[in-house]
Amino acid sequence: MTMKRLINDPYDVVEEMIDGYVRAHKDYVKVLENDGRVVVSKKAPVKDKVGVIIGGGSGHEPLFLGYVGEGFADAAVIGNINTSPSPEPCYNAVKAVDAGKGCIYLYGNYAGDVMNFDMGAEMAAADGIRVETVLVTDDVVSSENIEDRRGVAGDVFVFKAAAAKADLGGDLDEVKAAAEKANANTRSMGVALSSATLPATGKPIFEMEDGDMEIGMGIHGEPGVRRGKIEPADKVIDQIMDHILADMPLESGDEVAVLVNSLGATPLIDLHICYRRVDQILEEKGVKVHRAYVGPFATSMDMAGMSVTITKLDDELKQLLDHPCDTPYLTIK
Amino acid sequence: MTMKRLINDPYDVVEEMIDGYVRAHKDYVKVLENDGRVVVSKKAPVKDKVGVIIGGGSGHEPLFLGYVGEGFADAAVIGNINTSPSPEPCYNAVKAVDAGKGCIYLYGNYAGDVMNFDMGAEMAAADGIRVETVLVTDDVVSSENIEDRRGVAGDVFVFKAAAAKADLGGDLDEVKAAAEKANANTRSMGVALSSATLPATGKPIFEMEDGDMEIGMGIHGEPGVRRGKIEPADKVIDQIMDHILADMPLESGDEVAVLVNSLGATPLIDLHICYRRVDQILEEKGVKVHRAYVGPFATSMDMAGMSVTITKLDDELKQLLDHPCDTPYLTIK
Repeated sequence: MTMKRLINDPYDVVEEMIDGYVRAHKDYVKVLENDGRVVVSKKAPVKDKVGVIIGGGSGHEPLFLGYVGEGFADAAVIGNINTSPSPEPCYNAVKAVDAGKGCIYLYGNYAGDVMNFDMGAEMAAADGIRVETVLVTDDVVSSENIEDRRGVAGDVFVFKAAAAKADLGGDLDEVKAAAEKANANTRSMGVALSSATLPATGKPIFEMEDGDMEIGMGIHGEPGVRRGKIEPADKVIDQIMDHILADMPLESGDEVAVLVNSLGATPLIDLHICYRRVDQILEEKGVKVHRAYVGPFATSMDMAGMSVTITKLDDELKQLLDHPCDTPYLTIK
Repeated sequence: MTMKRLINDPYDVVEEMIDGYVRAHKDYVKVLENDGRVVVSKKAPVKDKVGVIIGGGSGHEPLFLGYVGEGFADAAVIGNINTSPSPEPCYNAVKAVDAGKGCIYLYGNYAGDVMNFDMGAEMAAADGIRVETVLVTDDVVSSENIEDRRGVAGDVFVFKAAAAKADLGGDLDEVKAAAEKANANTRSMGVALSSATLPATGKPIFEMEDGDMEIGMGIHGEPGVRRGKIEPADKVIDQIMDHILADMPLESGDEVAVLVNSLGATPLIDLHICYRRVDQILEEKGVKVHRAYVGPFATSMDMAGMSVTITKLDDELKQLLDHPCDTPYLTIK
């Protein structure tokens, strides 16, 4: 099947995307003059605030650069499609947003990202700037051990909590603790109904029989728990929620934030049908949804499919997720 | 090809979508107790404000219900997939949101919608409630005569301008005039790279050869101006902008709002590459972009493709588009 994409030279997609992004959202962000792979908030560096830096490979938009702006991330470091950014832009982001209180790196747990962001942090340490890191590890089926799990759409809630803590004046230890608490309380799981197409090859990232789905698949096509024919939405959500709730039991009276996320090509009609079932399950258990998002927040380009993210909340996390922010892809009044 | 959708019974998609929507966004909206096809802002009716009612067929989400909330629409009337709502919910929406200053119906120009909203207005007139209508007619290639053109993503800017005028205290004539001015200054054109799939049949709405695109196609698959092989993004945008600018010439010093809209399956990477070219063309002409949106605002479910909308602005339209609002799918601080 031919690639149904609107691009120019496949090797220019990331540069042209960043150029288009900064043109469209010029009131919010700019690109660093000395590094075209660092998108920085126009407000950064913010006086007396910990610098919040997010990032990773491209192809998951609006993750990561869509969440740079007031009250959210100060900078996003941008890699090629499904590829970690290099250490240099990770370091340059720190230099651009540090306001004397240090910086935090927040990103999904992938080996390449860990290696390169860690090198960026070392380079910053040589300049006397303290950089801490919290890895997001929300994908429940990617490993038995939480610390080995991948980060997927749960990024959004973890980043938001940490960024709000920074915006409220928290020091680097407090911002790190907020991110760690949000991550410890966040679980996600997805389903893929098709592969994304890779611009450089014009081909799908992985093969999938027409009419099949894969439950638990990662956003780069990492293997899930089961492949089979596409099932009704409620049946798919029941399986996803079984995995999430087995890993993080919820009780009557608990409060949560929910993200029903499109991986790209799955429309809002379907996502709201999926949200309905998630909400029914939580309602039956007596769990209260404090905040819900439904839409494309962490995608895999044109992949058909979706994911569910649940974050268990306490008073602090509620305050942090409710804290105002203003970015091109998430604004909270 | 099998339908890659996450739904339950195909005949329940709209009811389940509305149920899921109201569950997810319960702080913003509710469904009328006496009419399951009317989604109403929790703030409505707003004292001393003209009631703003939008609507049309389902399958274009977040249009229409996604824009119900503070500072934007007071209600959305919801039809089946690609089908006008019935007159009864159009009338019930008026009864629910009228605050004594009358109401305005705003929707895209489609025969079924015109017939049924007009009947709703007549029913309201019998109750002594004045209802005015402004049809959105932004699709440049759908007819030579502007008043015969279809409404597509330009809906968003026209609705926003009228709703802001109402929120600022305008009377019904002033709100109608703002909508008419926004519509007169708005042009859109799209390109489809695939059909959407219709849940009831599990089949595409129209046939399209793999690897083809159709420039100028409407959001329900109405014929465009040319079908051919998928071309590079810049070449597609050049053709779209040629049509738009031939129909609404822009001069150096003009200011515009731009919406680069996904029809569903086209990712943000591609949309920003498209936005880049739109912005380059406007920059070369000396036209200033006052406000830009890039994302899925008026879709056709899982259709691959996008559209460009340009609204020429004066001081009043700038103020109206900048006016704060808070809805699940558009928040302006």
